[in-house]
Amino acid sequence: MQPCFFALSGVLPREEALRAIRESIEHNYRRRGTAVVKRNLAAVDLALSELRRVRLPARADSSLRRRSVISEPVPDFVSRVTARLLAGEGDRLPVSAFPVDGTFPTGTARYEKRAINLKLPIWDASLCIDCGKCAIVCPHAAIRMKAYAEKELEGAPEAFPHKPFRDRELTHRQLTIQVAPDDCTGCGVCVDICPARSKEEVRRKALRMEAAEAHRQREREHFEFFLDLPEQDPAELSSLGQVKHAELLQPLFEFSGACAGCGETPYLKLLSQLFRDRLLVANATGCSSIYGGNLPTTPWAKNPQGRGPAWANSLFEDNAEFGLGILLAREMHVREARRRVGELADRMPANLAKELLDAEQTGAAAISAQRRRVEELKAWLMGMGAGSPGAATLLELADELVKKSLWIVGGDGWAYDIGSAGLDHVLASSRNVNLLVLDTQVYSNTGGQASKATPRAGVAKFASQGRSVPRKDLGMIASSYGNVYVAQVALGADDHQTLRALLEADAWPGPSLVIAYSTCIAHGIDMKHSMSHQRDAVRSGFWPLYRFRPGLEAHQRPFLLDSRKPSLSFAEFARSEARFAMLERANPERARHLFALAQADIEERWRLYEQLAGIERTVVHEES
Amino acid sequence: MQPCFFALSGVLPREEALRAIRESIEHNYRRRGTAVVKRNLAAVDLALSELRRVRLPARADSSLRRRSVISEPVPDFVSRVTARLLAGEGDRLPVSAFPVDGTFPTGTARYEKRAINLKLPIWDASLCIDCGKCAIVCPHAAIRMKAYAEKELEGAPEAFPHKPFRDRELTHRQLTIQVAPDDCTGCGVCVDICPARSKEEVRRKALRMEAAEAHRQREREHFEFFLDLPEQDPAELSSLGQVKHAELLQPLFEFSGACAGCGETPYLKLLSQLFRDRLLVANATGCSSIYGGNLPTTPWAKNPQGRGPAWANSLFEDNAEFGLGILLAREMHVREARRRVGELADRMPANLAKELLDAEQTGAAAISAQRRRVEELKAWLMGMGAGSPGAATLLELADELVKKSLWIVGGDGWAYDIGSAGLDHVLASSRNVNLLVLDTQVYSNTGGQASKATPRAGVAKFASQGRSVPRKDLGMIASSYGNVYVAQVALGADDHQTLRALLEADAWPGPSLVIAYSTCIAHGIDMKHSMSHQRDAVRSGFWPLYRFRPGLEAHQRPFLLDSRKPSLSFAEFARSEARFAMLERANPERARHLFALAQADIEERWRLYEQLAGIERTVVHEES
Repeated sequence: MQPCFFALSGVLPREEALRAIRESIEHNYRRRGTAVVKRNLAAVDLALSELRRVRLPARADSSLRRRSVISEPVPDFVSRVTARLLAGEGDRLPVSAFPVDGTFPTGTARYEKRAINLKLPIWDASLCIDCGKCAIVCPHAAIRMKAYAEKELEGAPEAFPHKPFRDRELTHRQLTIQVAPDDCTGCGVCVDICPARSKEEVRRKALRMEAAEAHRQREREHFEFFLDLPEQDPAELSSLGQVKHAELLQPLFEFSGACAGCGETPYLKLLSQLFRDRLLVANATGCSSIYGGNLPTTPWAKNPQGRGPAWANSLFEDNAEFGLGILLAREMHVREARRRVGELADRMPANLAKELLDAEQTGAAAISAQRRRVEELKAWLMGMGAGSPGAATLLELADELVKKSLWIVGGDGWAYDIGSAGLDHVLASSRNVNLLVLDTQVYSNTGGQASKATPRAGVAKFASQGRSVPRKDLGMIASSYGNVYVAQVALGADDHQTLRALLEADAWPGPSLVIAYSTCIAHGIDMKHSMSHQRDAVRSGFWPLYRFRPGLEAHQRPFLLDSRKPSLSFAEFARSEARFAMLERANPERARHLFALAQADIEERWRLYEQLAGIERTVVHEES
Repeated sequence: MQPCFFALSGVLPREEALRAIRESIEHNYRRRGTAVVKRNLAAVDLALSELRRVRLPARADSSLRRRSVISEPVPDFVSRVTARLLAGEGDRLPVSAFPVDGTFPTGTARYEKRAINLKLPIWDASLCIDCGKCAIVCPHAAIRMKAYAEKELEGAPEAFPHKPFRDRELTHRQLTIQVAPDDCTGCGVCVDICPARSKEEVRRKALRMEAAEAHRQREREHFEFFLDLPEQDPAELSSLGQVKHAELLQPLFEFSGACAGCGETPYLKLLSQLFRDRLLVANATGCSSIYGGNLPTTPWAKNPQGRGPAWANSLFEDNAEFGLGILLAREMHVREARRRVGELADRMPANLAKELLDAEQTGAAAISAQRRRVEELKAWLMGMGAGSPGAATLLELADELVKKSLWIVGGDGWAYDIGSAGLDHVLASSRNVNLLVLDTQVYSNTGGQASKATPRAGVAKFASQGRSVPRKDLGMIASSYGNVYVAQVALGADDHQTLRALLEADAWPGPSLVIAYSTCIAHGIDMKHSMSHQRDAVRSGFWPLYRFRPGLEAHQRPFLLDSRKPSLSFAEFARSEARFAMLERANPERARHLFALAQADIEERWRLYEQLAGIERTVVHEES
C-alpha cells in the first residue's frame, strides 16, 4: 500500500519516497536476517509492478451483498441478539435484549461461519489408520471423527466417505473423518501430524491440503450429514484412555476465534470431550478468555441433550481464588442437596434416595445413571407441587448431585506471574481442584511480554536481548507440596500422556496442576508445524514430560519421567524458532553465551529429574 | 479483679456470682487441661482471701512522681520530640516538630529505660567459657560482651568483673559479659542456653537469674563503664565465622519492644552485627515492623561514628518488590557515581579514582579502606566548591561507592502468603538481594492466624482443630530456581550454621533466602526455653537445617543437610508446645491421626532431603 500511495500521491518525489521506504525496510528488518529484508524489498517492487488503473463507474450498480456470517437456522436468542451484534448493529439493541444476569447461552460459535480458509484437508479413507491424531490436534474442532453402525449411512450423500473402524471394543462400526469446511482455518496441523502414509507413494498421506473452493460445496453437504450421525455415548466406552476413543466424543469447545494453528485450544477441546456436561471452567484473563468468550459468541458448546460445560472468566490476578470460590459454593450446595434428599427419603419412590446418596459416580456409565436418577428426582419433586416444604429448594439444587469436574484455566502470565500467589494458595488448600496452565512461555494476548515462564535465551518484550535467567519450574514448585498431582505435558509430543494426565488430574481427589506446552505465533514458527515443534521441544529436553502422582503406596515412585533422554541439542531446537533465532542474528556472541547456559540448564534439570524419578515414597499417609 | 468486684459490689448475691465465675472457668479452660482449670480456680480463692480494706486519705499528698522513662542525656531531637511522644504529649507537638520527609533518627530505643524485669542474669566470670551464646540469643541486645586491652580497666568501678579472653586471634584481652539492667526483660533465655557449668556444683552456671533490685544499681554503673569501653573494630577480625567473634561486635539493633524471649529479634540483631553500617533493610508489615519502628523509638542503632543500618517498612503485600526497588535505585546511583568519578579522575589526588573504582570490598578491612577513600573524595569535592560541575552531585552519591547489603525481611504471613507472589518475582530476578523470613509458622502480630507455614496438627486461628495439611516447603520452592541461595536455620539449634548462612547469603551475588525458625508466644511455650525448643524442633526432624548453595563447581553437591537424622519423635516434641498439646486434650482422636500424619511428613521429607543431598551439580554455568 505504502509504495503505491507514494507512487501516486505526489506527496514526495516518487524516487525519493521509494528510496526512503527501502532504507527503512533495511534498517527495521536487519536483525531479522537478510532473507526477511529481501522479501520485504521484493514486496515493494511487486506492489509497484502490479499497480493498475481501475475506472470507477458513475454510480455503484452491483447486486452483490456481503454474505451474512450466520448460518441458518438459529435459536431465537441468536437471531434476536447474537446475529445483530455480529452484524455490527449492537448499538441498536435495547438493554432489555440482554440476559438479566450476564449469563449468555453457550454453543453459539457454530452459527458464525466465516469460511476464511483457502485450503481444506481432504480425507483419503483408504490410507487412514483410525488413530484420531488429526482430530485431537485440531485447534478449532473443525475435523472430527465418528464411528457408527453401517445402517446409519442410509440417506448419505453420494460419495460420503467411510471405512470400517478397526477397534476391539467398538466392533462393526464405520468410521468417517469429516472437516467442517466453513470453520476450518486451513492451518494444516492435521495434515502435518497425520502418520498414515501410502506405501507406494511415501509423501501421500491419509489427509492432504487441497484448494478449498474445489471441495467446499461437497464438504458442506457431507458435514451436514455427519452432524446428524449419532453422537458417541461415553458410557459405551470402558475408558477414555485411548486417543481414538476420546476423539469419538463430541467436542464441546468448537470453532473458537483463536489463531490458526493455536497450541492452546486443543487442550481445552480435549477437556470438553473428557469431562463434557460435568465440566466447570474458571478462566483467567488472557488468550483463553478472549477466544473462550469473545462476545457475542462462545465456542463452549452443548450436547444434543442441551447440556455442556459452564464457563466464566475472572481477572488475571484472582482466577485461582475465583475457581476455589466456585468449588466452595458447590460443596455447600451438594451438602444441602444431600441433606434434603435425606429428609424426604421416606416419601420418595423405593430406593431412590439411597441410590442417589450412595452413587459412586466413577466412569461415564455410572455418572449417566446418576443423571437419570436426578431426572427421576426432579420429576417426582415437580409432581409434589411447589407447596411442599423443601421440594422447591431441592429442585433447584438437584443437578448438584451429579459429579462435576472443576478446572481453573489460564496462561503462564496468570499462573507464573500475576496470579501466582492465588495459584499457590489454592494448591495449598488440599481441595479437589484442577488447574490447567496453557503455557506459551510469554504473555501472548497482550503482545508478547516476557513472563517467568519465558525460557533463557528467548527474545520477548522486556527481554529484547534474550531472557538471561532460566524459566521458573512451576511443576517442581507445586510438587513440593507432596499432595498435589502435577503433570507437564505436550500434546504434539505425546497425546497419550496428555490424555492420561488430564484423566488422572480429574481422578485425584486433591489439587491437580497440568502444565501444557502451547505453541504460539509469538514463538516465530510456521503454525502448520505447531505440533512437530512440540515434539522437538521434548526431544531436546527443553520441555521434559513428567507426572508427579501423590497418594501412592509406600515403595512406589511418585515422580514419573515420561519422556526420553534428550537426543537433540538445544541450539538445533532453538534455531527453528524465531524467538531464539533472532537473537543469534542480532547478537551472535550473546546468543552463543545464552544457548550454552540454556543447554546447561537442560542437562542439570534432566539429571535432577532422573534422580527424583528414582525416589520411592517411604511412608503411606492419607491426604486430608 | 472479677471475684473481688462481685464480692464487694452486690450486683449479684456473692455466692451466685462466684459460682458463675467458677463454672465459666471450668467451661472455658477445660480443653487446656485440668491443671489450667485448677490454677484459675485457685486464683479466684486467693484473690478473695487477699481482699483488704484500704482507707483513702481525704486528699492525695504524695510527693512521688512517675519516673520519666527517658535516660538523660539525650540528643536534641529526642528531647524535643521523642521524649514528649513517650510522655503521651504527642498531640501538643506542632507539625513543624516532625521530620519533613518522615525519616526518623535511629538509635532511639536506648533512651527509653523501662526496667520491667524482676530478675537479672548475673555473670560468674570464673565459670565462663567465652562462647558468646548468651549474647547471640538475647532478644533485646541486653547482654553483651567486649574483649579489650587490660589498660582499659583504668577507672573501672570497684568489682567490675572481667576475665582473660581465651582466643587465638585476639590475644592479651580481658573479657566482660555485661547486662543492660534497665533494658533486660528478665526472660532468662541467656541463662537457659549457657553451657558453662561448675564442675563441683553441676546446676551452677556462668549465668544465673537473681532478684533485679539487689543488683540493679551496681549493674547500672558497670553498664555505663562497659559502654565506654572501645567497640570492637570488625577489621581486626580475620572473619566473622565464629559466634564469639561476631558477638564482640556492637549490635546495631538493641532494646526493641518485642516480647520477652522473642525468637525473631536475635536474627535481626545478628544481621546488624554482621553487616553493620552497610545494611539496608526493607521490612514487611508484621511483628518486625512493629518492634522495628514502634514510633517514636526504633531499636535500629548507630555506631560511635554515627553510622548504622537504614530501615524502612512497606506493606504486607509488596515488601519484596519494595526491597527490589531500593536495590534498583542503588544500582543506578552506583553507576552514576562511578561515571562521575571517572570523569573527574584526572583532577583527583593521585590514584584516588582508580582505587575507588577498583576496590574489591571483600571483608571488613577492605570495606573500611573504601570508606576512608570515600571520606577523602568527599573532602576533596568540598574543597572544589559547589560551583564545580558534577561535584555537587557526586558529593551526594559518594557514599554509594561503599558496598551495601540489602535485606528484605518479614514473617511467614508475608513470605508464604500475602507477599508470596512478590517474593517469587524477586527470587526470579537473579538480582543480588537477600531475604530473611522470620518464620513463627503463624501470623503472630495480628493474633495467631494460620498461614501456609503453619504445620500439620498445629492449632491456630482458622485452624482451631489443628491444621490438616502439611506446611509449604518454601525453601524447596526457592531452590527450584537453581540460582537462589537457600538456607533453613534455627539459631537455638545451631548458632554456627545460622552465622554461616547469613554470611554466605550476603556473599552470594544472586538472590538469597534464609528461613529462620522463630519461637513465639503463639507456640504456647515458656519463652525462657525459647532456644531449647528450637533444638528439639531440629532434633525431631520437624525443622531440618540445610543450605542450598548455587554457583559450585561440577561434581559438588549444592544441597547440604546440616542437621542430624531425627532422634526425637514428633509427638514428644509436639507435646511440649501448647499449639499441639491443646489438640491432644481437646480432640485426642484427631490429634492421634494428625500426629501420625505429621510424623509421616517428617520421614518422607527427610528421605527426600537425604536424596537431594546426594545429587551432584552436573555442569558448571555462570549465573547471569
